[in-house]
Amino acid sequence: VTEPDVLATYRMDQSQGTGAGMPLVAVRAESTRHVQAVLRTANRFRVPVVTRGAGSGLAGGAMAVDGCIVLSTERMRSVHVDPASRTAVVQPGLLNVEVKAAAERHGLWYPPDPSSYEISSIGGNVATNAGGLCCVKYGVTGNYVLGMEVVLADGTAVRLGGPTLKNVAGLQLDKLFVGSEGCLGVITEITLRLVARPEAPHTLVASMPTLEAAAAAVLEITAACRPSLLELMDRTTIHAVDDYLHMGLDRDAGAMLLAQSDLGGSAAVREMEQIADACAGNGAKDVFRTDDAAEGELFLSARRASLPATHRLGSVYLEDIGVALPDLPKLINGISAIGAQTGTTIATVAHAGDGNAHPVVVYDAADPESEAAARRAFSLILELAISLGGTITGEHGVGRLKTPWLEQQLGSDAMALTRRIKLALDPEQILNPGVILP
Amino acid sequence: VTEPDVLATYRMDQSQGTGAGMPLVAVRAESTRHVQAVLRTANRFRVPVVTRGAGSGLAGGAMAVDGCIVLSTERMRSVHVDPASRTAVVQPGLLNVEVKAAAERHGLWYPPDPSSYEISSIGGNVATNAGGLCCVKYGVTGNYVLGMEVVLADGTAVRLGGPTLKNVAGLQLDKLFVGSEGCLGVITEITLRLVARPEAPHTLVASMPTLEAAAAAVLEITAACRPSLLELMDRTTIHAVDDYLHMGLDRDAGAMLLAQSDLGGSAAVREMEQIADACAGNGAKDVFRTDDAAEGELFLSARRASLPATHRLGSVYLEDIGVALPDLPKLINGISAIGAQTGTTIATVAHAGDGNAHPVVVYDAADPESEAAARRAFSLILELAISLGGTITGEHGVGRLKTPWLEQQLGSDAMALTRRIKLALDPEQILNPGVILP
Repeated sequence: VTEPDVLATYRMDQSQGTGAGMPLVAVRAESTRHVQAVLRTANRFRVPVVTRGAGSGLAGGAMAVDGCIVLSTERMRSVHVDPASRTAVVQPGLLNVEVKAAAERHGLWYPPDPSSYEISSIGGNVATNAGGLCCVKYGVTGNYVLGMEVVLADGTAVRLGGPTLKNVAGLQLDKLFVGSEGCLGVITEITLRLVARPEAPHTLVASMPTLEAAAAAVLEITAACRPSLLELMDRTTIHAVDDYLHMGLDRDAGAMLLAQSDLGGSAAVREMEQIADACAGNGAKDVFRTDDAAEGELFLSARRASLPATHRLGSVYLEDIGVALPDLPKLINGISAIGAQTGTTIATVAHAGDGNAHPVVVYDAADPESEAAARRAFSLILELAISLGGTITGEHGVGRLKTPWLEQQLGSDAMALTRRIKLALDPEQILNPGVILP
Repeated sequence: VTEPDVLATYRMDQSQGTGAGMPLVAVRAESTRHVQAVLRTANRFRVPVVTRGAGSGLAGGAMAVDGCIVLSTERMRSVHVDPASRTAVVQPGLLNVEVKAAAERHGLWYPPDPSSYEISSIGGNVATNAGGLCCVKYGVTGNYVLGMEVVLADGTAVRLGGPTLKNVAGLQLDKLFVGSEGCLGVITEITLRLVARPEAPHTLVASMPTLEAAAAAVLEITAACRPSLLELMDRTTIHAVDDYLHMGLDRDAGAMLLAQSDLGGSAAVREMEQIADACAGNGAKDVFRTDDAAEGELFLSARRASLPATHRLGSVYLEDIGVALPDLPKLINGISAIGAQTGTTIATVAHAGDGNAHPVVVYDAADPESEAAARRAFSLILELAISLGGTITGEHGVGRLKTPWLEQQLGSDAMALTRRIKLALDPEQILNPGVILP
């Protein structure tokens, strides 16, 4: 693709806060051989290559740089599910939702469920080690990767791992490419582990008096049982969602907790009771439970609407920080303090059971002061996470957006080690330059 | 340690089939600083370093080479459990069983359970990415590693990962050290994820007419539900165990299946029914079920006794191959054929739900022909696994024992990539030379 109008659609992902350059060309690869040809040429002439799946990334991992080749995997869409081995062999351009659907047709389940699952590609999910709502019980994308084919910077295609569920033959090289954000190679095929479908979920919604009470309940819940979902919404988010969807949410609540159990039968009832007890013990004003999956999904829709709802408040910077669970109250209080200090509105939703929070900093794009305050808040939140021993990104990735803060989190020795691995695999540094490593 | 008598106890692990050299010295490190001092010196003078935990390895990953330093982590035994974050920070010399016990004291659970869990170190578990019986539901050691401190070949200590449950800040370097068998660095501290304790298990034992019927039942079970344990013993093993423990096992059975569900309540009952149905549908002669955990443990003791029981038949080569689940029947038939072809007795137990089998090749160490036949059988089994697209090691590691077969499985490109990573991290190649890479 070289026509400027079409090329423009390959320049950016969905992140805010980093610029994009102008690519020379975009290539819509249809096979591993296409990818190999692109990389061989790019490596020879030292042309930067920015790989993109569906372009739904939120951290600037698929932003073009000037003069680069954008390598799109959108046309690599094959999928083969083997119900006997419970694996799916997929090409990277398939959407997450399509992987789930293919598994479903065989009565199986692919658990990872980033909020973007309907629009994000499985290749992008693997390249960012994407998380989601079910992680609290089922882990992240990387936990489901059994093997892959990856094309290295010089165009060599290598197969790593395979369809066996346990395999310790040699270094775990496939794991190194999971979350490597296009900096080490281009993933052209993935073998995914599928699991038996869970039981229909029981759902609980609790209206908590304060954020602190909600965080305390989360700690009690995760110590007692393994809910299949455990999400938190703060009051700003509750109001934004209720203004948007008019669901009659409790606007006086300090926070709302949503939890699910997919154990089925009496085990689910028992788990729901443990969760309800933890909420009640921390002053829940109202606890609603249902074993009707459709009704449960209605409540979840409040959570799912939180991002579009907060988008209606203004322009946003979306954060993705994480801390060890006991530091969740400190993190949440710290975010409130940063909101007050910078005069910004911050709406926070969290994958609470994982300690992974998404504060959304709202600003007025037409007002430079408001934008500057939001940027300040964004930066302060990252520094808060680091100061708590946490992470600047739980599931979105570093991309270009957070590269300036990465060394502060990892330290110089881990950065030096990262550089050594990068140079060993991509000596000409053509792959996604500026991402992860400045 | 330089006294020859004591030094001799640091020469070997528990593997059969590879020789050990004579170390210069063994060092019982007590701290990360000790490990750093050893590596700095070794790197400067290019002295090989063989790191060892408890020396319980089965693949020759901790066999001394001539003139090496054996670096023992046995005195690095601290453990700190944080029940709020459900993490344990441990030093590598602690035994797996001690990690489990420390978690238990806080009402928590560290799932990975290699059969050696009472004698193997957590550092060795991480360095080999050890498996176990609960993997079928709970995954392997690597799934529980959140972070680590590792000392690189040049003596630099680096912290990777951390206590956050989700963390995609930078490359997943900690995952690269999981399963690296002492070839890339020395792990000096590990942050492990703990989970809430499961319910007391329900247990099922099925006596199956043939191995094929047992394998077919396994496929039906794993497609329908997620048992917390799913093990298989073949007839040779059943007889060996019954001769040893006189448990009154069904000596006419072609194979025995053991399964557990830890869902509790009606969910466990339902899961047990699904498993019982799959066994009955494949011609089970007898299916016994109990929801009494102690009684279930009695049946499991038959499985746990299989290795000591087969050891009574003679000297043994212990295999550890894996295939994709649907190839389990082919693997099992192939192993029988190899037994017939080489005139050897092969007793097979399998983590059937993972497709990971441990054929035990029995031989008479006093008879060179018998030993040669056993070696032939060992080699043929590895080649069988490779020909089925499987792995030469599911959970024990490559060590020195299986290095000759590794390239046949991985291919030359993946081996070249392994070499690039090795040279980037250990340019003087002092770390466990001859392991993984020839």
